[in-house]
Amino acid sequence: MRIAAALLLSVAVVQPSDLKATVSAWADAHRQPILDELIALLSVPNVATDRPNIRRNAERLREMLARRGIAADILETTGNPLVYGSLTVPNATRTVLFYCHYDGQPVDRAKWRQPDPFTPVVRGDGPEARLYARSASDDKAPIVALLAAVDALKSAQLTPSSNVKFIFEGEEEAGSVSLVPAIARYRDRLTADLMIILDGPGHSSGRPTVAFGARGIATVNLTVYGPKSGVHSGNYGNWIPNPAVRLAQLLASMKSEDGRVTVRGYYDALPPLGAADRAMLDAVPEDSDRMLKTFGVAEPEKAFPKLQYALQYPTLNVRGLTSAFVGAGARTIIPDRATAALDLRLVKETPAADLIAKLRAHVEQQGYHIVDADPDDATRATFSRIARLELDTPPTNAFRTSVSDPQARAVVASLTRTFGQPPVQLRTLGGTVPIAPFIEALGFPALTVPTVNFDNNQHEENENLRLGTFFDSIVTMAALLRL
Amino acid sequence: MRIAAALLLSVAVVQPSDLKATVSAWADAHRQPILDELIALLSVPNVATDRPNIRRNAERLREMLARRGIAADILETTGNPLVYGSLTVPNATRTVLFYCHYDGQPVDRAKWRQPDPFTPVVRGDGPEARLYARSASDDKAPIVALLAAVDALKSAQLTPSSNVKFIFEGEEEAGSVSLVPAIARYRDRLTADLMIILDGPGHSSGRPTVAFGARGIATVNLTVYGPKSGVHSGNYGNWIPNPAVRLAQLLASMKSEDGRVTVRGYYDALPPLGAADRAMLDAVPEDSDRMLKTFGVAEPEKAFPKLQYALQYPTLNVRGLTSAFVGAGARTIIPDRATAALDLRLVKETPAADLIAKLRAHVEQQGYHIVDADPDDATRATFSRIARLELDTPPTNAFRTSVSDPQARAVVASLTRTFGQPPVQLRTLGGTVPIAPFIEALGFPALTVPTVNFDNNQHEENENLRLGTFFDSIVTMAALLRL
Repeated sequence: MRIAAALLLSVAVVQPSDLKATVSAWADAHRQPILDELIALLSVPNVATDRPNIRRNAERLREMLARRGIAADILETTGNPLVYGSLTVPNATRTVLFYCHYDGQPVDRAKWRQPDPFTPVVRGDGPEARLYARSASDDKAPIVALLAAVDALKSAQLTPSSNVKFIFEGEEEAGSVSLVPAIARYRDRLTADLMIILDGPGHSSGRPTVAFGARGIATVNLTVYGPKSGVHSGNYGNWIPNPAVRLAQLLASMKSEDGRVTVRGYYDALPPLGAADRAMLDAVPEDSDRMLKTFGVAEPEKAFPKLQYALQYPTLNVRGLTSAFVGAGARTIIPDRATAALDLRLVKETPAADLIAKLRAHVEQQGYHIVDADPDDATRATFSRIARLELDTPPTNAFRTSVSDPQARAVVASLTRTFGQPPVQLRTLGGTVPIAPFIEALGFPALTVPTVNFDNNQHEENENLRLGTFFDSIVTMAALLRL
Repeated sequence: MRIAAALLLSVAVVQPSDLKATVSAWADAHRQPILDELIALLSVPNVATDRPNIRRNAERLREMLARRGIAADILETTGNPLVYGSLTVPNATRTVLFYCHYDGQPVDRAKWRQPDPFTPVVRGDGPEARLYARSASDDKAPIVALLAAVDALKSAQLTPSSNVKFIFEGEEEAGSVSLVPAIARYRDRLTADLMIILDGPGHSSGRPTVAFGARGIATVNLTVYGPKSGVHSGNYGNWIPNPAVRLAQLLASMKSEDGRVTVRGYYDALPPLGAADRAMLDAVPEDSDRMLKTFGVAEPEKAFPKLQYALQYPTLNVRGLTSAFVGAGARTIIPDRATAALDLRLVKETPAADLIAKLRAHVEQQGYHIVDADPDDATRATFSRIARLELDTPPTNAFRTSVSDPQARAVVASLTRTFGQPPVQLRTLGGTVPIAPFIEALGFPALTVPTVNFDNNQHEENENLRLGTFFDSIVTMAALLRL
């Protein structure tokens, strides 16, 4: 009730342009309790398979919501529980669903500098100080920052400008397998006008960042078959066809020298980028020279000289190659097979099924008979070129919210008002987020607002959170609550 | 002296056309003592690193020669000793040097059906009976067969028609490293008009076989560099060049779809095959259909539809490929590098240095800067395409004795006379023999006469000798002694 009352007062009490100063001041004054709440949350181990501790995390999160007067509940699923919260704001015409996840990657304790990744350690001073713990940045920090922003607004007698729903997932790092099935059971609670995903590292410039989408992924193993078992390269070399050479020829037929995919129709579904799209891509601050230097690469692919443009297209990436042995175990043979592990990054216009069908057609056009298992003798006797295309893991499609979507524009406008300059706006992330099927199934727009430091060692040992960035993110969260 | 006397009588006592019958009858009558001598020799373990037993082998071989009135000696080298024998035949105008090796491949006892690979076991009956032991066929059987042939001639009051020298090597399976250096020390003893190498499996038809040469080999690792370490294929896919794709394109540029090497000048040094060469290749009995069926290959390379022709050309074989991971460990990255392990089978006209220089030039023509070690930052910043070409093991060149060489013709003529039909004549073996540098350094013609069963499990567990084939080979040896 106090929140509802505050809403009525909000415009009068604090001008939106003051939001940054107001929330920053509050955060400065409450550093220790905010940090204490984060440390307490990080102290509960959260590997998805550790069911008792996952349950303890869920209980704690429910309490953290309830303590703030947010209606909170634990939603059981076929896997780890979801934590749900709902804050209804009188007269609000928009509902925003905030998504975070509370589970973390497994830990290899021996590789950490601290004895226990679940006993957080602060190193360094001032804004450069960092908090080291599993999930410090991925993804418990956004939960604590978001709830701190709720507190900051309340303290300033402000309420969120939208109805707010919270959904905290407990198995994101384990593939989110229970998330889509949970929709059928909890659709009414999950309904909203916009989902804001609070996950991932922000732009390296440190500016607030909004991503409108993420590429999807399909992983495929492509095998070209040679003789049934390796044959002597002296006794039969030149005569028996070599599957490694043929795989190389097949892969070479799929990409041009300048890096474009030459599989027929691969880019056909993509409309040309419009002027607004191009302006958006050009506005992303990038230090390509520094990135290339870091990677030790003299120049990018000629067909994709600018990174943001490169991310707008599907890829055909060879992530691994294998055939017989290289190095110590090498034998002078014509190998029995050669395999390329491919990953196809998908964009909104090119779902997995479409690109895989085109890839398959291309392999056939190159003269290959495609099999679904190692070929039998009859198949071997009939076809001189035999290949297998095998889906490795289930594909995840891309999502991309329209840049002109009104809810998305409201997010950008609020961040622009709050910070005095527009956020870094990414038309799509290059990578893939496991939540994409959830977004697709819910059917309303989604944005990602990544807030933690880009160099957080996410998924690795010594995961960390830059505290200056963390406290700044409370302002970002407040702006998201005040669309 | 008895041998010299027998020589004078030889033409009168037995017509050459009777040689087969005479030697076969003698071998039949002496099966047990011949087999006993072989079993006794096989009972001395002969792995090249087992110095005490290697010495016991050498001593036994010296005794086996001396017992037959052959001047015999152990020649010390920087490695395992050579066993040398010499049989001077009055009025002989030709000297033939027979080469065999007495060492064998290492044994993995657990994989053998018998408890000890150095305690020979006979299984089966009649001509199909097989003797199982390490070196049963590779390469102690030819030594015993050759000495049995000396005995058979003596019994028939025949002598060899040439001066005969024997050289038995003790580290062929360990790379023959001491063999070429030994030439400087023992050149006078090793001088001959012709070397006959008694090693390897005969033609699958079971007919006597003469090979005029063997291809050489050079092994090369070709690495294409990507980013310094693998980068995320989502975050950077399309933008950062992929070294596995580039390696595929580079390999594809080296071979045509029909299997010809497209590296400039690769075949330039080869004169066209003449009518006599073609007749020789066409005369080799081959059951290509059966071979292809065994290998599970529908058709050979279109550029090389006939095996014997395929062997006359150098190869560019990809014996292995590797880049990042395929399968369980696969990660969605743009790999840091991709490597192809190549073997180049060499022919007489294309020594290793020549083909490697052409390969190197080809890689450069494809736009690559070639490095000799992993590139440093300055190199990475300067060149967008970086590759490494690395010799894996020292190359072995090819050897090939002219088909019209008079000594070679004498061997073929003697085998033809003895067996009533010409031997299978191979212009070159497809594989490589470690003795090639020895042949090159000695500087006189060499032929290989392989005599043991083709399915002998050479180098593997349960190595065996088909006894019917072994006793037949005594006649072949006699023909070689009676050129």
